[in-house]
Amino acid sequence: MQRNRNEGTAPVRVALDAMGGDFAPEEMVKGAVQVIDSLNAELILVGDPEPVQQELSKYDVADKPITIFPSDGKIGDDEHPVQALRQKPKASVVVATQLVKQGQADVIVSMGSTGGAMASSVLALGLMDGLERPCLGGPFLGLAPNTVLVDIGSNLDCRPRLLLSFGVLGAAFARTYMGIENPRVALLSVGSEAAKGNRQVQESYQLFQDSRLNFVGNVEGMDFFTNKADVIICDGFVGNILIKFTEGLGGALADYLKNKLSQVMPDDAVDKIASDLWETTNRPRTVGGGPLFGVNGAVVLGHGSCRAEGVAGAITTAVRYVNVGLVDIMRTELATITSSSRSREAG
Amino acid sequence: MQRNRNEGTAPVRVALDAMGGDFAPEEMVKGAVQVIDSLNAELILVGDPEPVQQELSKYDVADKPITIFPSDGKIGDDEHPVQALRQKPKASVVVATQLVKQGQADVIVSMGSTGGAMASSVLALGLMDGLERPCLGGPFLGLAPNTVLVDIGSNLDCRPRLLLSFGVLGAAFARTYMGIENPRVALLSVGSEAAKGNRQVQESYQLFQDSRLNFVGNVEGMDFFTNKADVIICDGFVGNILIKFTEGLGGALADYLKNKLSQVMPDDAVDKIASDLWETTNRPRTVGGGPLFGVNGAVVLGHGSCRAEGVAGAITTAVRYVNVGLVDIMRTELATITSSSRSREAG
Repeated sequence: MQRNRNEGTAPVRVALDAMGGDFAPEEMVKGAVQVIDSLNAELILVGDPEPVQQELSKYDVADKPITIFPSDGKIGDDEHPVQALRQKPKASVVVATQLVKQGQADVIVSMGSTGGAMASSVLALGLMDGLERPCLGGPFLGLAPNTVLVDIGSNLDCRPRLLLSFGVLGAAFARTYMGIENPRVALLSVGSEAAKGNRQVQESYQLFQDSRLNFVGNVEGMDFFTNKADVIICDGFVGNILIKFTEGLGGALADYLKNKLSQVMPDDAVDKIASDLWETTNRPRTVGGGPLFGVNGAVVLGHGSCRAEGVAGAITTAVRYVNVGLVDIMRTELATITSSSRSREAG
Repeated sequence: MQRNRNEGTAPVRVALDAMGGDFAPEEMVKGAVQVIDSLNAELILVGDPEPVQQELSKYDVADKPITIFPSDGKIGDDEHPVQALRQKPKASVVVATQLVKQGQADVIVSMGSTGGAMASSVLALGLMDGLERPCLGGPFLGLAPNTVLVDIGSNLDCRPRLLLSFGVLGAAFARTYMGIENPRVALLSVGSEAAKGNRQVQESYQLFQDSRLNFVGNVEGMDFFTNKADVIICDGFVGNILIKFTEGLGGALADYLKNKLSQVMPDDAVDKIASDLWETTNRPRTVGGGPLFGVNGAVVLGHGSCRAEGVAGAITTAVRYVNVGLVDIMRTELATITSSSRSREAG
């Protein structure tokens, strides 16, 4: 269906949802222009032609591989994703997804409605075997930049088998994308012993133990900071609460610290430290986006609040995601586990 | 069974588990001596007589209402609580609990094994109607000192009815102990709309809506910092992960900041700021302990790492807990909800 251009020679064709995000299309276009020279990529800006062209005309891009592909409208954060898909079949994120489906692009990048992008991706590209919905994963803390959390928020009620799938996807990401050899996978729980945890974790433990994953057991909340695991697995309910809690805490701490330090340091030094602190509790602004795991195609989603710097980061992520061939690797590994556990169930 | 001396005139009799905690009995005794003059209380140090007497003899307490009550041994963090209770029927926390059961003390304070103290309390004092286990609640963040979280970690799999009980207990605590009039109660979820959440939250929503609580709907992870609710309800699995994550983050951030600031500020100023920051993400060291909700008697549990300052804080908490008559209020309110929902189920 989609091509994974992991030869690393052909330019990666990125379909950027130019209308998605709080500062679209301005910051989307700006980010695209900023990053194009540093990547072996072609950028396709998918959006309402007029405003996108207007933004693009601010830059001297005549000789750069940036094109506009027309769409009509966008899916807002406040819309019900599936209804919106029906009502707006030409919305930017839908058209961008179609480009990947039809082989005209290799990866989608969107800072728009997460629900809209997920629904559109599932509909156009399909889910990998064994999954009920896609999931979101990746490092989420500046303080623990190499610790991958899956699921960050889309699968709220998870059976053990689904958690195991998250483990496979997270481990593939950690190994292939982040370069962590034989990543240590753990279940997030309330104690390190096998018997510690809610029913979901207790039932999942043995399944992880029996899998081919490098399962290191349960970890606890503080273990995001103790380097006991590379990939930490929880359901999307816990993951979503954790990531939003962290963002809230980071903002509150930055304010608190600003207030404390402004009495003893010059303002610009205070701002720098508060901003650095904020980044330790959030995904760095420059990273911009993370991959959507589990769909049969490369999709990178970013925070709606991203500015050009974040958009550039997300595009860079997307190019790397395609070049390492992660989608195929994930699908293959997921299928292996699915079939081995099926034959075990049958046998 | 136990007396709630809410007349506020008779001294509150505190049974302090002098053997529980990482720095027992030294810091337990020190904390007791530090705080006794500021409270209308009698302190009963429950522990192995010799080491406790040895600590106590360091201070001039001849005319103070501090006595020693003998026990034999302690329950360690590494022991299975119920087994340990059988094997050590004279352990300090067991004897302290018995003092409350027999009306010789009004409240227990322990920094020892949480599991041991909980098991001992349930066995001696019994659970309030409608609960399966006690629960832990209270403010847990220096940055949100008036936001109560229930359950912090003892009930891992919770049915909606149990979550509602936590709501009742948390609201009673917020109103009676913290002085918050008509406290706003919320369910912790992944979105504010009624339909957002895992099955547990979705099923609980209507139950909360129909209750007498001042239910304000769902809140999200960042809402610990937005003052949308006074009492936030989640199961103990989520609560435990959140509190341990916060502690870990606080420690990591304090280290990070020390490192950052040590280049631009004198060491003692850096230490002060890092320590202040740590407190914003943890229960302040001076608070020391929080009440155990749901047992028919007043029990205050603290962190094993508490020093004298924290022990003094926990004793102060315990005295106030008794003086406001919180145990009786909680039991009464829990019974009202239990009976009203029973009659609804029957009708």
